[in-house]
Amino acid sequence: MFNGLLKDLAQNLKQFPGVGEKTAQRLAMFLISQDKEKSRRLAQSILDAVDKYNHCSKCNMLAETDPCPFCSDTDRDVKRICVVENTADVYLINNTHEFRGIYFVLGHLLSPLDGIGPAEINFPMLVDKIGEHQPEEVILALNPSPEGETTINYIASQLQPMKISITRLSTGLPFGGDIEYTSSMTLSHAFKRRMPI
Amino acid sequence: MFNGLLKDLAQNLKQFPGVGEKTAQRLAMFLISQDKEKSRRLAQSILDAVDKYNHCSKCNMLAETDPCPFCSDTDRDVKRICVVENTADVYLINNTHEFRGIYFVLGHLLSPLDGIGPAEINFPMLVDKIGEHQPEEVILALNPSPEGETTINYIASQLQPMKISITRLSTGLPFGGDIEYTSSMTLSHAFKRRMPI
Repeated sequence: MFNGLLKDLAQNLKQFPGVGEKTAQRLAMFLISQDKEKSRRLAQSILDAVDKYNHCSKCNMLAETDPCPFCSDTDRDVKRICVVENTADVYLINNTHEFRGIYFVLGHLLSPLDGIGPAEINFPMLVDKIGEHQPEEVILALNPSPEGETTINYIASQLQPMKISITRLSTGLPFGGDIEYTSSMTLSHAFKRRMPI
Repeated sequence: MFNGLLKDLAQNLKQFPGVGEKTAQRLAMFLISQDKEKSRRLAQSILDAVDKYNHCSKCNMLAETDPCPFCSDTDRDVKRICVVENTADVYLINNTHEFRGIYFVLGHLLSPLDGIGPAEINFPMLVDKIGEHQPEEVILALNPSPEGETTINYIASQLQPMKISITRLSTGLPFGGDIEYTSSMTLSHAFKRRMPI
């Protein structure tokens, strides 16, 4: 529909996850229609964030500093390592205030079909980290998806000789969920793992 | 959830229409996680578009050039002026290939409650344009909403002494629509204005 710089802008906005042709055009039009200063501020804050955020050399999360705030916080319990897929998961888990240990970001889940093997998920770096801290527990906080299960199984089997407690997040009905709208796999799992009251 | 530059970025992304806190955080995380060059390209294309797009001095649409490609195209029929609310509407109507005349962008619809009166909708500029081109037809291609109706009525009454044919877009059932899901106002209107076959 557009041409010139507006077409370029819409094309670049389409890279956002979940944004298709139409939405990209609408966002592009919005950016050139609103107060120019606001749009420039958005552009500048993208540039600033992209320049500053890099992978922490100790846990691989994206952070403004290296080491990241978690790895440089000496109050955290290095005997517990929580392994997550990506940086967003660190923030989400940290927000629950359930965990005072340290994190490790895999970056991906194992997916042999997509060519993502142990080297791509930074497994060697995780082994180094475990060697350094000798943790009591490694929590594999990964999605209960096929890729997540594969990754959990792989890491658990590799770490088994080390005599560390290896845990994963509980699975079952989500709070606020409705049995009627729960997948039969989740429901059958929740039934099998029913908890004493 | 975030802090520092990532929080600023999410805050700036929240200005997009329809983007709330959660989506803004997801987009911010996406921008710092993906290939940095792609994010920088997006930022640069926002800056480029914002710098280049300005209101055409003849029709008020946002364009890279002044006059805009429509106003500087001598092949277009200046005896027909299509009045629209905003620049996006120009592109949408142009895409139908139904119209070879020239456009005029109001920028807003009349909305006395929000303090948007005739001066805010560039009505004086439209009168000048009409004076210049002496058109045979002025098409008021505005939304069939309360603000659109108010604007249509205002412009039509002001232009009436000029003996120009003043038209508006037809209203009725949308193609592909379903009578069952059509508002009763639209349906009653479509019934009243039923067309001979």
